[in-house]
Amino acid sequence: MNVGLVGVTGYSGSVLFELLLRHPQVDHINLYGHAQKVAQSLEEVLPQLRRRDNILPYDPADIMKNNQMVFFATSAGVTTKLAKPFLEANFPVIDLAGDYRLKSRDVYKHWYKKDAPEDQYLQQAHYGLTDFYSSKGEKYVANPGCYATSTILALAPLVQNHLIDPTSIVVDAKSGTSGAGKKLTEITHFSKTNENLQLYKVNQHQHIPEIVQQFQEWDENVPYIQFTTTLLPLTRGIMASCYAKAKDNVTEKEVRDAFVKTYSDDTFVNATEGVFPTLKQVVGTNFCDIGYQLNPVTHQIVIISVIDNLLKGAAGQAIQNFNQMFDYAPEAGLNLSPVLPI
Amino acid sequence: MNVGLVGVTGYSGSVLFELLLRHPQVDHINLYGHAQKVAQSLEEVLPQLRRRDNILPYDPADIMKNNQMVFFATSAGVTTKLAKPFLEANFPVIDLAGDYRLKSRDVYKHWYKKDAPEDQYLQQAHYGLTDFYSSKGEKYVANPGCYATSTILALAPLVQNHLIDPTSIVVDAKSGTSGAGKKLTEITHFSKTNENLQLYKVNQHQHIPEIVQQFQEWDENVPYIQFTTTLLPLTRGIMASCYAKAKDNVTEKEVRDAFVKTYSDDTFVNATEGVFPTLKQVVGTNFCDIGYQLNPVTHQIVIISVIDNLLKGAAGQAIQNFNQMFDYAPEAGLNLSPVLPI
Amino acid sequence: MNVGLVGVTGYSGSVLFELLLRHPQVDHINLYGHAQKVAQSLEEVLPQLRRRDNILPYDPADIMKNNQMVFFATSAGVTTKLAKPFLEANFPVIDLAGDYRLKSRDVYKHWYKKDAPEDQYLQQAHYGLTDFYSSKGEKYVANPGCYATSTILALAPLVQNHLIDPTSIVVDAKSGTSGAGKKLTEITHFSKTNENLQLYKVNQHQHIPEIVQQFQEWDENVPYIQFTTTLLPLTRGIMASCYAKAKDNVTEKEVRDAFVKTYSDDTFVNATEGVFPTLKQVVGTNFCDIGYQLNPVTHQIVIISVIDNLLKGAAGQAIQNFNQMFDYAPEAGLNLSPVLPI
Amino acid sequence: MNVGLVGVTGYSGSVLFELLLRHPQVDHINLYGHAQKVAQSLEEVLPQLRRRDNILPYDPADIMKNNQMVFFATSAGVTTKLAKPFLEANFPVIDLAGDYRLKSRDVYKHWYKKDAPEDQYLQQAHYGLTDFYSSKGEKYVANPGCYATSTILALAPLVQNHLIDPTSIVVDAKSGTSGAGKKLTEITHFSKTNENLQLYKVNQHQHIPEIVQQFQEWDENVPYIQFTTTLLPLTRGIMASCYAKAKDNVTEKEVRDAFVKTYSDDTFVNATEGVFPTLKQVVGTNFCDIGYQLNPVTHQIVIISVIDNLLKGAAGQAIQNFNQMFDYAPEAGLNLSPVLPI
Repeated sequence: MNVGLVGVTGYSGSVLFELLLRHPQVDHINLYGHAQKVAQSLEEVLPQLRRRDNILPYDPADIMKNNQMVFFATSAGVTTKLAKPFLEANFPVIDLAGDYRLKSRDVYKHWYKKDAPEDQYLQQAHYGLTDFYSSKGEKYVANPGCYATSTILALAPLVQNHLIDPTSIVVDAKSGTSGAGKKLTEITHFSKTNENLQLYKVNQHQHIPEIVQQFQEWDENVPYIQFTTTLLPLTRGIMASCYAKAKDNVTEKEVRDAFVKTYSDDTFVNATEGVFPTLKQVVGTNFCDIGYQLNPVTHQIVIISVIDNLLKGAAGQAIQNFNQMFDYAPEAGLNLSPVLPI
Repeated sequence: MNVGLVGVTGYSGSVLFELLLRHPQVDHINLYGHAQKVAQSLEEVLPQLRRRDNILPYDPADIMKNNQMVFFATSAGVTTKLAKPFLEANFPVIDLAGDYRLKSRDVYKHWYKKDAPEDQYLQQAHYGLTDFYSSKGEKYVANPGCYATSTILALAPLVQNHLIDPTSIVVDAKSGTSGAGKKLTEITHFSKTNENLQLYKVNQHQHIPEIVQQFQEWDENVPYIQFTTTLLPLTRGIMASCYAKAKDNVTEKEVRDAFVKTYSDDTFVNATEGVFPTLKQVVGTNFCDIGYQLNPVTHQIVIISVIDNLLKGAAGQAIQNFNQMFDYAPEAGLNLSPVLPI
Repeated sequence: MNVGLVGVTGYSGSVLFELLLRHPQVDHINLYGHAQKVAQSLEEVLPQLRRRDNILPYDPADIMKNNQMVFFATSAGVTTKLAKPFLEANFPVIDLAGDYRLKSRDVYKHWYKKDAPEDQYLQQAHYGLTDFYSSKGEKYVANPGCYATSTILALAPLVQNHLIDPTSIVVDAKSGTSGAGKKLTEITHFSKTNENLQLYKVNQHQHIPEIVQQFQEWDENVPYIQFTTTLLPLTRGIMASCYAKAKDNVTEKEVRDAFVKTYSDDTFVNATEGVFPTLKQVVGTNFCDIGYQLNPVTHQIVIISVIDNLLKGAAGQAIQNFNQMFDYAPEAGLNLSPVLPI
Repeated sequence: MNVGLVGVTGYSGSVLFELLLRHPQVDHINLYGHAQKVAQSLEEVLPQLRRRDNILPYDPADIMKNNQMVFFATSAGVTTKLAKPFLEANFPVIDLAGDYRLKSRDVYKHWYKKDAPEDQYLQQAHYGLTDFYSSKGEKYVANPGCYATSTILALAPLVQNHLIDPTSIVVDAKSGTSGAGKKLTEITHFSKTNENLQLYKVNQHQHIPEIVQQFQEWDENVPYIQFTTTLLPLTRGIMASCYAKAKDNVTEKEVRDAFVKTYSDDTFVNATEGVFPTLKQVVGTNFCDIGYQLNPVTHQIVIISVIDNLLKGAAGQAIQNFNQMFDYAPEAGLNLSPVLPI
């Protein structure tokens, strides 16, 4: 099968390309640059990938003719402008950006400070949270955000089973610098980032409404979450440290049963009571590892989830959506080694 | 004035020694090793300090004869065994370890897994939280713990002024590896720590009862705190990310007034509304910088405090206690440069 | 095919295990622990590998019965003691340790401070420098050392073609901490290693005689090399910065021709004139990237080579030897992604 | 005494400012911004310094009227344009930039790609290599470069005493990212720099002619040096790993005597035979630590020197020059603590 990829030069795009190169069902990957007029060689822009593929100019008709589906690994706002022909043609798209994740145009505009896609297109999009929904048969998949994935997976069993006070959720999320992309910024200048912790977008991160939208699908009583983001002096990985007050009378067993029921058959999510994962144990893999514990003194539940932000938080989950869409094995293309030693 | 220092070889002890060498009121520092029988040269054990001072064998009578006061920078359990002669003689001691911080022997034994000092001695000890209590005239000062300092300073204005739900406190604290000391451990092996986050002592850190004891001094309704600790891939610094539910009707102004009232005259604590400190801005200094914000959506108050764990969290606060004890200027010996660039 | 692996718990052993799990020609891997009496579960000793394989007690007869070959990823000295039955039986072994690399027992003893294997066995061993010699048909392969690999590959074209003054070689080699293994040491304690450079084993590294032995194979006039090793504050990778005086009249073209001739058909070595590789571009891969330049002012040739010490410098090259031994495709099991972003 | 400082916002300028604030002979520091028209507050541009000093518009007459001397911590090219009035007036200047270090205008232009200062002014400038020349009585001091300082101090005893083959010098120099300044660049983007080594300006670094010029002062037979620079994943510090062939018959004793003679009375340079310094042992201090060893096998001398690039390599040496200029104690303002633990 041939697949198209728009936006290989960003961090998620590069990782996705490496995954696709090794995917057993992918014969050929056509690369497209949405901002260029003539073909370029990948070697010119990313020599470190050791590939001579051409990056073709962006042309929807050409993409649809030469591929069975297309990935967009572009920044926010791009697919709002570009995806229409694919949506109209019902051509399969997996979109790694945030444009089609939020169902409300107003909410999108408020958090992203950009115009949202048209409502009819938004409603066509499927939120590709692979561990809860299948993309089988879907045409336009909005791949979840990295912070959203780690936070939703951490809290899902508790929200779905109504085990926590819905107004008590606190998420202290931490991310490596690759989450901030390749753009040069003050906050990611080595002399600033190294030996440092820096908060950013406090109470303003655009993944907040994505998380809340999903929680409200499961429990309409979740009004909001308290969510902060801290930049770590390391490259890859997200840890979401989550706290929520257990409802009165909720027991350790109920908490455990909720996690076991939710994840015991999941290929990529592992939840363990009382053992907290380290960040590095998932880096280089598509796993989401979760540790949880009901503190009998405070009656708070602590839930720590870790993912590789570029894999389970982006390109890896995109491959999961691809596998679901085309009915391939869940782990196809995702049998990855962690970055040892861990 | 001559001062004694027992335990120069640990991280806190070394930093304290460097501070004392530059303190304008200190004429001479006598070093003592509590576990050695004969004098050693500092050059043998810590050549990197570039000093040839002798480390003298431990002898309480000798210490009291040759110094006006003594610092203990020893690990937990040592002063429980050694401090008695000084307490009996009412000789001034500043103790950087945890032995005399908790007023309850049972609580100490529960959290430290060691026998506590005798009750009469515990009651003589003063908890040296310099921004709230003065050590002037005190004889035995228990210098606060690093996590305790950062957490208490972050939340004090809210607890003292009863602005938060006392059962809602969540602290997500992070520390650099120097907090774990010089002992070789799995968790601080470079190949393990680097590019990683590791939780440790979840719900079991011995600074939890120290924090709760202090909060209950101010508000007997604080029953406990939810407190986790995460090891960072960096050497120096603690960030305590604190969350608490504002009581109904509490306003931004009340929160701001509490912080302003508490810290506007404080030499080393700076609290700013809506601006969150970076960790590195305090490393190398004795400052505690705090940023706080009432989130109008969640009605949670986010409070982020940062300190250098070896200075404000240990040796720096010990110098503050020393200055208070002997009525020196608050900033004497603490006019430090940060580790630029920040 | 079934393969045995003795020593999965070290860093090289773990990485080798992950490679073997994904190798298309390997059906089953039997794990053996050379220091244990009863079977253990891998989950107990290395839960982060997410595998429940048993680690079987060490038994040569059992190993030879159940496998077509065996890897040893043990520390120096172990195969000197254990390999004899395999050598006697002409059973295929790939040994990642240094025991069988040096042809002279005296040299081994001098540098390793251990007794060498018996001479007859030493002479049976093949030095598995895959880019220059093939292991096809060999029975006992001594897999090269990490520093040796990076240094030999950097200088081989110049030594083989006699383009440099053989007494002028200077190698300033740098390694990440994974090269020092999982043993806890002062030098790899995070608070020591981080933000630091530390030299170690100056003029005493046991890879020096391995490099010199190989160079003398190619040019008996190379009497020695000047070689230093510096520990870097990062986990994976070796950079060997090599300097050698070009012989009088040697031209840029001759230098270039030597590198092109040597490596243009090599699967894993890439040499480029005037472009110096970064360390990270090979981490996670089996590549050795080399940049070289004849400085017209000093008439020195600068050659920079980079490898992942655990792959091309250990487990990756072991797989290359395995592929050569059994006539599999050179890249089988080694189609690896780098750790992006690079 | 009042001193002026032009360029406080760069890394060297900030560090210099912190040193001057604590210098016992400095009463007041006037800050000047060479690119601004109106006074700004330091708080606006560098709030992390916790100072409310004004940054005054640049006006040479004003500077000379209100200060007894002025420091320039500006980038290359600025003092070429601005320093003339001070040179004409014989007003004391310490210039941290490279503009006045090279005596030849052509050499400057070749390496800096900028026009050099006029020849008459160049000849007035004193090269402030404090451990070899005194700035006492000098009016315009060109403070040495960071790489130049570490390299010259490492090799000076050998060059001055003609103990090495003058064509054999190889310097493998490594620097933390603060040496690259605060400008955002690809090479210092955290996701690029972290876990990486990157060479830059190979054979093209502008400190090469500065080093050669100095060596030729001491031994006209030194024609050049082989010099490479590698960017490290850490913030502060330079290690210069130097190699040079001992002349025939040169003995260990002669090497040792040269170092002892040169540095035994030096306040800030420590040279030790056979013990190689770690980078971190000098970070935060003005020391240059040197380890050296004659390798009896290769007859190469290995010399490793380490400095803090922002102190001994910039602002610290500038303070040394200041102390020499005005006859203050050598260590005035430089009694600094290292960044422990080391």
